[in-house]
Amino acid sequence: MDRREFNAALGAAALSGLFTTAAQAQQPQPAARKPVVGMIVHSDMILLDLTGPLTAFNILQTDIHLIGKSKQPVTTDVGLPVTPTDSFETAPEVLDVLFVPGGLKGTVDAMKDAATVAFMKSRGERARFVTSVCTGSLLLGAAGLLKGYNATSHWYVRDLLPLMGANLKKERVVEDRNRITAGGVTAGLDFALTIGAKLAGEDAAKRVQLLLEYDPKPPFDAGSPEHAGPAMSDLILQRRGAAIAEAAAAAKEAGAKI
Amino acid sequence: MDRREFNAALGAAALSGLFTTAAQAQQPQPAARKPVVGMIVHSDMILLDLTGPLTAFNILQTDIHLIGKSKQPVTTDVGLPVTPTDSFETAPEVLDVLFVPGGLKGTVDAMKDAATVAFMKSRGERARFVTSVCTGSLLLGAAGLLKGYNATSHWYVRDLLPLMGANLKKERVVEDRNRITAGGVTAGLDFALTIGAKLAGEDAAKRVQLLLEYDPKPPFDAGSPEHAGPAMSDLILQRRGAAIAEAAAAAKEAGAKI
Repeated sequence: MDRREFNAALGAAALSGLFTTAAQAQQPQPAARKPVVGMIVHSDMILLDLTGPLTAFNILQTDIHLIGKSKQPVTTDVGLPVTPTDSFETAPEVLDVLFVPGGLKGTVDAMKDAATVAFMKSRGERARFVTSVCTGSLLLGAAGLLKGYNATSHWYVRDLLPLMGANLKKERVVEDRNRITAGGVTAGLDFALTIGAKLAGEDAAKRVQLLLEYDPKPPFDAGSPEHAGPAMSDLILQRRGAAIAEAAAAAKEAGAKI
Repeated sequence: MDRREFNAALGAAALSGLFTTAAQAQQPQPAARKPVVGMIVHSDMILLDLTGPLTAFNILQTDIHLIGKSKQPVTTDVGLPVTPTDSFETAPEVLDVLFVPGGLKGTVDAMKDAATVAFMKSRGERARFVTSVCTGSLLLGAAGLLKGYNATSHWYVRDLLPLMGANLKKERVVEDRNRITAGGVTAGLDFALTIGAKLAGEDAAKRVQLLLEYDPKPPFDAGSPEHAGPAMSDLILQRRGAAIAEAAAAAKEAGAKI
């Protein structure tokens, strides 16, 4: 099943020439190079971390590569496996966007995997944009890609970023030169529009926003530790303590090497 | 690959007993019946329509069934296939939640498919909640499930709902008795918290919001036709005109039967 086939669906139907006027379409145009997007997929990934940005990259008709350590399907939090289109061996050498989704256990496993860290470093050093959503920034950090950069992560592990030389900014989407990191899970939508504007222009990003009807109206106001309050946040921190402690150990070990 | 296996990841790790105090956990509890959630999956589905609500239903440890016409994988907009866990034949007879994602071409195909419409009708008439995101409400409408109910849909087809007896409300999430319909794609997140509160209580829904860090801050304000302005909206309506016309024909035909 080929991604290109699906461009016949929402992606292409919505945007292939959708925002080109008839007059423009009739003129011969130089074939624009599609931005090359490499999205890391790893086991224990949060599918929603991937799906938000993937949907935007697809509508924007970028050249998307889902890159796994191998081409074996990876597991996700919701039980739907994702099959990589590329392995570390077949992935493009130079990416316009290197993107890393999160999922705490999967991120920590990836931080400890030398081949994954080496791949991140090799592609991250050459990519036009180095990006993440959720705990994905911990893997960027472990590869030395956030040293001296402002960055963020899921609220429950973002304090670990300075262990790997990053300057923590508690914002939803943090840009510093060509690094763009976002907060937990749903911050991927805000990230997607931010990177979309850089790749295709602000108007194209706004069209994506309109197509996805991204005019959020959460029924509750509990989407950050500040708004949810300390009781709810502390409970999550406490119950996820073991996983966060493993992430802290991995961050310290990685930090000592970079 | 079994969904239950993945509850070891974010889902279970985050919430299995996560919000139970130690004292509560030590007391014998009557085994609570998990809410049974039936999520329709169909070809040309928008994966993000499914993924937002699926993530919340998974964290809330509901009993999730991904129901296809058959168990064959269905295609999605982003090229990642989804394999149903159930077919119409094996799906539970009684659902706490019947949920339908969108994807305009896929919705219209489903509206025209007698077996799909009959399945929707049989499960919808008995479900505790009958719900949709995006163009999914057109399929609910075609099954006669929105007749006399307030409802909404993706902005570019919501005007078609009255053809099937619904009262259009231009809101992001519309509740009317046990019908809950939401706007386009990303409205699925607001829907997920709304239904989550009904199934598991407001505190549980807020914990989902905090885990998903759903504190949205879109970088642009173009997520509705009203905010994006008529030029951008009209262009989308014009370029999607053929697909919308097909949806209108299907809605008229369905409306004549109910």
